[in-house]
Amino acid sequence: MSTAATDAVSDPRAPVGVGVIGIGLIGTHHADNLARRVPGARLVGLADAQPGIAERRAAALDCSFWTRDYQQLLDNPEVEAVVVAVPADLHADVIVAAAQAGKAVFCEKPLASDLADADRAIRAAREAGVILQVGFQRRFDRAYASARRLVSSGALGQIQLLRSITRDPSLDQPERVTPGAIFRETLIHDFDVLRFLAGGAEPVEVYALADALILRDWKPRGMLDTAAVALRYDSGAMATADASFQAVYGYDVRAEVFGSEGMASIDVSDSAQLVHHTWAGSIRARPRWFIDVFADAYAAELAHFADCIRGRASPESTGEDGRAAMVMALAAMRSAETHRPVSIDEITA
Amino acid sequence: MSTAATDAVSDPRAPVGVGVIGIGLIGTHHADNLARRVPGARLVGLADAQPGIAERRAAALDCSFWTRDYQQLLDNPEVEAVVVAVPADLHADVIVAAAQAGKAVFCEKPLASDLADADRAIRAAREAGVILQVGFQRRFDRAYASARRLVSSGALGQIQLLRSITRDPSLDQPERVTPGAIFRETLIHDFDVLRFLAGGAEPVEVYALADALILRDWKPRGMLDTAAVALRYDSGAMATADASFQAVYGYDVRAEVFGSEGMASIDVSDSAQLVHHTWAGSIRARPRWFIDVFADAYAAELAHFADCIRGRASPESTGEDGRAAMVMALAAMRSAETHRPVSIDEITA
Amino acid sequence: MSTAATDAVSDPRAPVGVGVIGIGLIGTHHADNLARRVPGARLVGLADAQPGIAERRAAALDCSFWTRDYQQLLDNPEVEAVVVAVPADLHADVIVAAAQAGKAVFCEKPLASDLADADRAIRAAREAGVILQVGFQRRFDRAYASARRLVSSGALGQIQLLRSITRDPSLDQPERVTPGAIFRETLIHDFDVLRFLAGGAEPVEVYALADALILRDWKPRGMLDTAAVALRYDSGAMATADASFQAVYGYDVRAEVFGSEGMASIDVSDSAQLVHHTWAGSIRARPRWFIDVFADAYAAELAHFADCIRGRASPESTGEDGRAAMVMALAAMRSAETHRPVSIDEITA
Amino acid sequence: MSTAATDAVSDPRAPVGVGVIGIGLIGTHHADNLARRVPGARLVGLADAQPGIAERRAAALDCSFWTRDYQQLLDNPEVEAVVVAVPADLHADVIVAAAQAGKAVFCEKPLASDLADADRAIRAAREAGVILQVGFQRRFDRAYASARRLVSSGALGQIQLLRSITRDPSLDQPERVTPGAIFRETLIHDFDVLRFLAGGAEPVEVYALADALILRDWKPRGMLDTAAVALRYDSGAMATADASFQAVYGYDVRAEVFGSEGMASIDVSDSAQLVHHTWAGSIRARPRWFIDVFADAYAAELAHFADCIRGRASPESTGEDGRAAMVMALAAMRSAETHRPVSIDEITA
Repeated sequence: MSTAATDAVSDPRAPVGVGVIGIGLIGTHHADNLARRVPGARLVGLADAQPGIAERRAAALDCSFWTRDYQQLLDNPEVEAVVVAVPADLHADVIVAAAQAGKAVFCEKPLASDLADADRAIRAAREAGVILQVGFQRRFDRAYASARRLVSSGALGQIQLLRSITRDPSLDQPERVTPGAIFRETLIHDFDVLRFLAGGAEPVEVYALADALILRDWKPRGMLDTAAVALRYDSGAMATADASFQAVYGYDVRAEVFGSEGMASIDVSDSAQLVHHTWAGSIRARPRWFIDVFADAYAAELAHFADCIRGRASPESTGEDGRAAMVMALAAMRSAETHRPVSIDEITA
Repeated sequence: MSTAATDAVSDPRAPVGVGVIGIGLIGTHHADNLARRVPGARLVGLADAQPGIAERRAAALDCSFWTRDYQQLLDNPEVEAVVVAVPADLHADVIVAAAQAGKAVFCEKPLASDLADADRAIRAAREAGVILQVGFQRRFDRAYASARRLVSSGALGQIQLLRSITRDPSLDQPERVTPGAIFRETLIHDFDVLRFLAGGAEPVEVYALADALILRDWKPRGMLDTAAVALRYDSGAMATADASFQAVYGYDVRAEVFGSEGMASIDVSDSAQLVHHTWAGSIRARPRWFIDVFADAYAAELAHFADCIRGRASPESTGEDGRAAMVMALAAMRSAETHRPVSIDEITA
Repeated sequence: MSTAATDAVSDPRAPVGVGVIGIGLIGTHHADNLARRVPGARLVGLADAQPGIAERRAAALDCSFWTRDYQQLLDNPEVEAVVVAVPADLHADVIVAAAQAGKAVFCEKPLASDLADADRAIRAAREAGVILQVGFQRRFDRAYASARRLVSSGALGQIQLLRSITRDPSLDQPERVTPGAIFRETLIHDFDVLRFLAGGAEPVEVYALADALILRDWKPRGMLDTAAVALRYDSGAMATADASFQAVYGYDVRAEVFGSEGMASIDVSDSAQLVHHTWAGSIRARPRWFIDVFADAYAAELAHFADCIRGRASPESTGEDGRAAMVMALAAMRSAETHRPVSIDEITA
Repeated sequence: MSTAATDAVSDPRAPVGVGVIGIGLIGTHHADNLARRVPGARLVGLADAQPGIAERRAAALDCSFWTRDYQQLLDNPEVEAVVVAVPADLHADVIVAAAQAGKAVFCEKPLASDLADADRAIRAAREAGVILQVGFQRRFDRAYASARRLVSSGALGQIQLLRSITRDPSLDQPERVTPGAIFRETLIHDFDVLRFLAGGAEPVEVYALADALILRDWKPRGMLDTAAVALRYDSGAMATADASFQAVYGYDVRAEVFGSEGMASIDVSDSAQLVHHTWAGSIRARPRWFIDVFADAYAAELAHFADCIRGRASPESTGEDGRAAMVMALAAMRSAETHRPVSIDEITA
């Protein structure tokens, strides 16, 4: 371990050295943020199994360490923490290895591809005493965080109805759509939001509808593009959610929390500050790309991660949160298959 | 029949003579509209079983005929058509009597309190050859009608996801809330909207959650104040709906239709043209009273009724539409009771 | 005078009998409102110098009295009040005649075409003790009236900056544009608003720019289509205004009042409750026709007129207000001609 | 010059080495951006005449070079370019020195405190062949840049009316307000916008009103807090502007461009994506701090600066633009003093 690194680790004000494992779309974005936009962190290494990927990104970001073998990254003493952005079915293995190496872990959603893996990852982090944060970036978006404060403060009274939607123009990139993706990859954000904004209430039962409405030939392959969900909380509160992969008008992420004293409504894609007034009406453009919509949130979640590592913040969006959203997604999938409401207990039992 | 009335009836440009049966909150509003705001109609009589009610309103509106016995109104030759605004369990009897008297009928929602009554009413109107229109005024609101045109024109492509909500500050008038009201009286509007905007698709299955979240002691009496619904159409499209009786921030009625080519979103209570900018932020007031929100729509549905009677328009919002929304409400009620999705066939069988 | 009319006048709850003089675009609209939408008034007669005009409208509105000679209307004992909607250069003569006949007068803006006429009209009404109201309907629009209440209540603090604009798609009807129209007919509304919302401050100096930017050949004929104004109040407050006759995107009327404690901003043409989300963005349609925008305000100003006649309200938008806006328009016209600020005193001296 | 620096300069992809002179409020923000948020640039030195300032900021930003003497910074071979953020009356001296040292210059607005200085600075840059960019960050805001593209593309037709406003809650920091500041420091942004969005038209005459309305005792000291402006372009187009230092509801920067084919309207402070619906209405919060509003624009203008230095972009917001806005501010100040419109020629003659 270099002296510099030792000093860094012992100095609570020093930026946290972070390595990124998995340099795909979102891993690249996290690496860029660590290199440039997250004051409390610095990028110290990149790993990607595919040849050339980590190397090229390292060059672009002026990062001196890259590898195809993530274990080498974990062995690097400058690496205090890792961002895990490999495919979901590999999450648990990487988390366990990182935890055993004593590294704090930021893992992209979903936490894992099955509950056994999720439990294994959570247990490894707990046993190693390292932070495990799951990449639910909406929690770090300014509007979602403000809504949460309204809920926590009691300003909305007793929470009664919630809503969260995600409509994505994903078919721009049909290769991004995999079987189960609408629940595991997309609605999992909504499920987390529906817990985040519920004031402590926990879902007890989920009912889901899902279909391949856009590309009908997807259905036999388990590819679904449209879903709607109704769910019930232990508090009696209720929620609906829906998702689509063909929002031709742009990326559409919204939420609302309705309580006995008021409502908070969020529309993160309503950000146009220019209106073009034409014969056809007054037109506001919408963003089409989720990373544009959540650019600040993606930086903020990593800043929070660094703050937690330095002891300046307490963890938000934990492994347990990641698991809870997975449970909801699994319940929704089973509900859509069996055409009946599925209780949370049925999944966790 | 007076000569004047004969002339009126024979002259296609003469205003339609309309009587109102049931002078409660909404009956009074219809009577006022007929007296002042509906060019193609004129108010010719009022009936209410309670002493003094019809008489007093007749005086206020300069209407020369009033009665406690609606049969007398039906016998009046100046009455070409009636608005039925008595309690829902009396609808069928009045509709049958009116139809037998050869009067066109505008009936407030819900069409009836059970399906047998609904069928009886529809049959009577059909056999008498009179128009039967149900008071789904949202169909006549400018925004809803425009959204429907977008759907019909194909501008939204294939319809995939719909939403309709009704949140009412009704607990301002708790006496307005009756058992089943959240489905039969409130969500019935949403159910109609979810058919109106679905581009011809018909619901096949309904799942509903409902509870008494505000006044917990209501539940034993069957009084529910909050509900959420997910439903599926024969086209594969899906919808969600929710309703509450405690929207403290004002009357909140919204809808959206999401299709493969775009979305139409409606917020009829977002009508403030004044913004008050304060230290606390920029504030827009919202209306609290549904009649304010739908003032133009209430007048427009009666104008349409008159146009249909004079043959200038084809009926919108028919008895069959009224029945279809009732079926959805009944399916939702059964779903909420039995905690399972209920198919439309199960109700109509 | 018929017994009925006598009774009406002596009964403070009876609707006011109103005749309309001048059945052009706006006179027709007032007549329609009096016939159908103004509870406290009833239409009792129509006068228009052109053959057939009053007669045809009377038939359409079921009004039994019409004439080409407005003096006959003034002689009709059922006529308690008149709406004057003849060309502006005839306003004073008609007002004087009506006042001498003891009729309350509602006069369209501008009050007159020169100050001598305005003074003659005001004096005649004062001497006859009849109400003289000028048709500044924006004062009766809900948003403008609410802004005025915010100003009066002190909620906005000391008023410092104001703004009012009128952009009209008038070139749809180029025949509506006359020399001086942009000041005398259009900005006169803004000038009244800038007094109405100033919290009692009065303009002391006006600077104006004006040109024919759309149809350049208009300028030699004194036809201007675009104007901008800056003005100063006796309180030190300042205001800007602008106007155009070529708002291709629709009718655009806005205002704002900025004070030491907050701001009120008004956009009366932002009324779309439907948003159409397309590839091109989220589109809200705007109204193109000023009568659609101010439909409620036009009815409300006549209801207020009737209330004043029956003693239930004190006059708003008086002859003096009409004159004050004229003075501002004259100052603006002189400023635009002479390229210098023009003081109010210079016009009134 | 170190080898590294030589390589950097010879490599068109290497980040531009930038030093910051003047580490006050805005200089600090630029330094932070250069250190973290501007991909094409890197922070290589800080200079501030006051003891400790540059040193402390250098430590925070991990920058190895600092000095109290900006000439030392200019002598540093790693410094390819400088950001000048000293008080305005020192701008010209620093620009001249930097130009003579062959450094590209980014200068905060206003370019200088008098025209002679502005000319001296522009001449020095031209003679040295270095880029001189003035800090009009609104040009780099996404909404302003989009509006400019609409103008340039002809989508708005012939430009006829413009508007720009700046209302700042500055009295939160009364020490920020200096004599003339409302014209020289604040409206100078609006003057630049009114040129930027005018489609090539140039202002020819300015009329301005200004006063101390909030703190009346400021006026004798030349401190003004409120201003309104009307101006005329060589194309015949017109514009209004206004400014205040007491926007209690938050930072309020807006603009609009109205043309014969449409309008673009900009509201950069309308960015709330959360609405809180309460009994009092639906509340959107507004930002209070200009750096929050323009965070992206501040980074973008430096990225553009770096791109220009590397030859990847042609300069926007030049020294000549900085001078032109100064001329407008001087004309406005003279107009406010003399109560007459002042022609641009009168200032430049």
